[in-house]
Amino acid sequence: MQPESILREAFARAVARADPALALAGHLPEPPTGRSFVAAAGKAAGSMAAAFEAAWPGPLEGIAVTRYGHGVPCRRIEVVEAGHPMPDAAGRDVARRILEAVESLGADDLFVFLVSGGGSALLALPLPGISFETKRAVTAALLASGASISEINTVRKHMSAIKGGQLAAAAFPARTVTLAISDVPGDDPTVIASGPTVPDPTTLGDARRILAAYGIDPITGLEETPKQLERCEFHLIATPRECLLDAALDGPPAWLLSDRIEGEAREVGKVMASMALHTRACGAPFPPPCLLLSGGETTVTLRGTGRGGRNLEFLLGLALALDGAPGIHAIACDTDGIDGMSACAGALLYPDSLARARALGLDPAACLRANDAYAIFAALDDLVVTGPTRTNVNDFRAILVES
Amino acid sequence: MQPESILREAFARAVARADPALALAGHLPEPPTGRSFVAAAGKAAGSMAAAFEAAWPGPLEGIAVTRYGHGVPCRRIEVVEAGHPMPDAAGRDVARRILEAVESLGADDLFVFLVSGGGSALLALPLPGISFETKRAVTAALLASGASISEINTVRKHMSAIKGGQLAAAAFPARTVTLAISDVPGDDPTVIASGPTVPDPTTLGDARRILAAYGIDPITGLEETPKQLERCEFHLIATPRECLLDAALDGPPAWLLSDRIEGEAREVGKVMASMALHTRACGAPFPPPCLLLSGGETTVTLRGTGRGGRNLEFLLGLALALDGAPGIHAIACDTDGIDGMSACAGALLYPDSLARARALGLDPAACLRANDAYAIFAALDDLVVTGPTRTNVNDFRAILVES
Repeated sequence: MQPESILREAFARAVARADPALALAGHLPEPPTGRSFVAAAGKAAGSMAAAFEAAWPGPLEGIAVTRYGHGVPCRRIEVVEAGHPMPDAAGRDVARRILEAVESLGADDLFVFLVSGGGSALLALPLPGISFETKRAVTAALLASGASISEINTVRKHMSAIKGGQLAAAAFPARTVTLAISDVPGDDPTVIASGPTVPDPTTLGDARRILAAYGIDPITGLEETPKQLERCEFHLIATPRECLLDAALDGPPAWLLSDRIEGEAREVGKVMASMALHTRACGAPFPPPCLLLSGGETTVTLRGTGRGGRNLEFLLGLALALDGAPGIHAIACDTDGIDGMSACAGALLYPDSLARARALGLDPAACLRANDAYAIFAALDDLVVTGPTRTNVNDFRAILVES
Repeated sequence: MQPESILREAFARAVARADPALALAGHLPEPPTGRSFVAAAGKAAGSMAAAFEAAWPGPLEGIAVTRYGHGVPCRRIEVVEAGHPMPDAAGRDVARRILEAVESLGADDLFVFLVSGGGSALLALPLPGISFETKRAVTAALLASGASISEINTVRKHMSAIKGGQLAAAAFPARTVTLAISDVPGDDPTVIASGPTVPDPTTLGDARRILAAYGIDPITGLEETPKQLERCEFHLIATPRECLLDAALDGPPAWLLSDRIEGEAREVGKVMASMALHTRACGAPFPPPCLLLSGGETTVTLRGTGRGGRNLEFLLGLALALDGAPGIHAIACDTDGIDGMSACAGALLYPDSLARARALGLDPAACLRANDAYAIFAALDDLVVTGPTRTNVNDFRAILVES
């Protein structure tokens, strides 16, 4: 099999493992004696809702909220599109409707929450005493102060009517069953979409201490989050790790380096290049031919005005460090099908990619400096275009080292 | 054995493998019927010269040039200290004397060149028709234009009286034997100290094309470098890879991820953290307990005014990404004993390092932003201080993941 086919198939297997239709099978709860209400939120919400209603044997009501362009037609569940990563009024309105719907459920009813990455922004609803403007200003002040993401999320949970277990608390006494597709390292249920149906390990006191530590004025209207939730179950139905391991099921021997890679995309590319070059030159730590897999989410610091998501930047950084080394191919894609703001999932890298780009009059190093990796891979016709996959287990990277 | 002892001993084994006294054994050439002249250049030049003269059975003359502070007393070889990484007049003068000495050798004589990393800056001597100012201006213009290091080195070799095989050409008809300690990825003899005794694969035409491509005025006085050298041998006596593999000889199972890691130090730290966390959480791709080794040379982009070389920055980036995760310890040191401009070789990292630093009133993230990793590890008393080791096989990093 050609390197390109090996890499494309590995990516396709990873995405297929996260297909809600497949992932939901075996996780459907027992139908209740009363009503069944489904709420779905996240990049995979449309397809999770469609898969759920296709498999559900009884009557059903529900609302799904997903990112613009990620909706899929459903028969019984209403599908709404809203803003992501910046929350908007559409998301706020649907969050309020979902909250009201679950509050109306009784002890004989079932609440099914289908959650995936992105659900936090799509279900942004402040507590009644806190304005959207306050929430936004506090978040901005925390970001500017150097607070960590986990500190920011601790404060946010205590400003929200949904996050940190509050959605499940609102549904009580109904039984709550959450089926989750994880896009976060370690698959922590309190982190996926900020855990609307999971007891919150952080406290109101933590939130107040964080605000004080960064010199931000106290906020009135914060509320304690639930520390314990009854009649509440949480099931992971797909994780980055499972998807990456499925990618390894066929083709040359594959090694999962990590399901949680972080770091500046182009620098991650350099590190991976140094491992691939060592593997190729020394046959260690993995004997070639082999596939070096990794997941997680890199970051991009914007310096230029070009196009190109984190997977394209990773690939261009990788390419420049490999410098045309023979026998090394790669693929890097966002499993949601949209790499940053670009119109592709990612791209393929060949040993001759840099040479072909230069022959077209392009300067790969200059394109990387301008955050314009898209220009390179588009000109080479090496983009991987899938459209929205309607699922999300974060980034997928595979480097094929031939012997 | 305690994690700290495991890591310190692994580093000590790596440095010991690069000790010239050990590395030279078994590589001494046959004494000639005529004179024997030794030139040594690089961070290990002092100790290589001392080891060579201690082992050499016959008469001997020679000159060694090393970095300020890296000299060692020799009986028969004159040891000179000079500027590194910025060349200075001391280096230029000694380079001229070495060139004149080898030009005086005849067919019955032997020229032994003991080379190690840093030798390029320490032996900087432009061709007679090119001024130091021209050489410096061209290098600065190439750096500013975005030329790659290999392009810059191609031009430099054709401006130099020493590099790119010219030192060995000057020694002909004497026999030339080079004994090298490598500090470069892949151990390419043309790259170690810019290959003064190795035929140069780049041409005068390449150098002129590179200048033209970056819009730099042509330089008069460039000369072609030797493409073939007679009576000339090259032996690697120590490499980063050998030293890293020796580090793995004792203690828990060790895996060499790569002997040629590149990238921004703090970002390399994040990537290594994500691999260590995955290894600890999932027992893959390497079953813990295990030691994750890597070599090569990271880079540091200066943004702040603090102290801290690339190994300390790597460790602080690693620490922030590990965020106190239990069961993971690390060491990162420059094998030459001097991490950047700091007074240490590197440092040790413990699971509680961040917490201890914060208890001392330090802000680890702020220190990293200010390029001040030294402040953290000095306050924690976790620096590894060796003084100059008088050898150099580049960076040494080891992460111990407990089970």
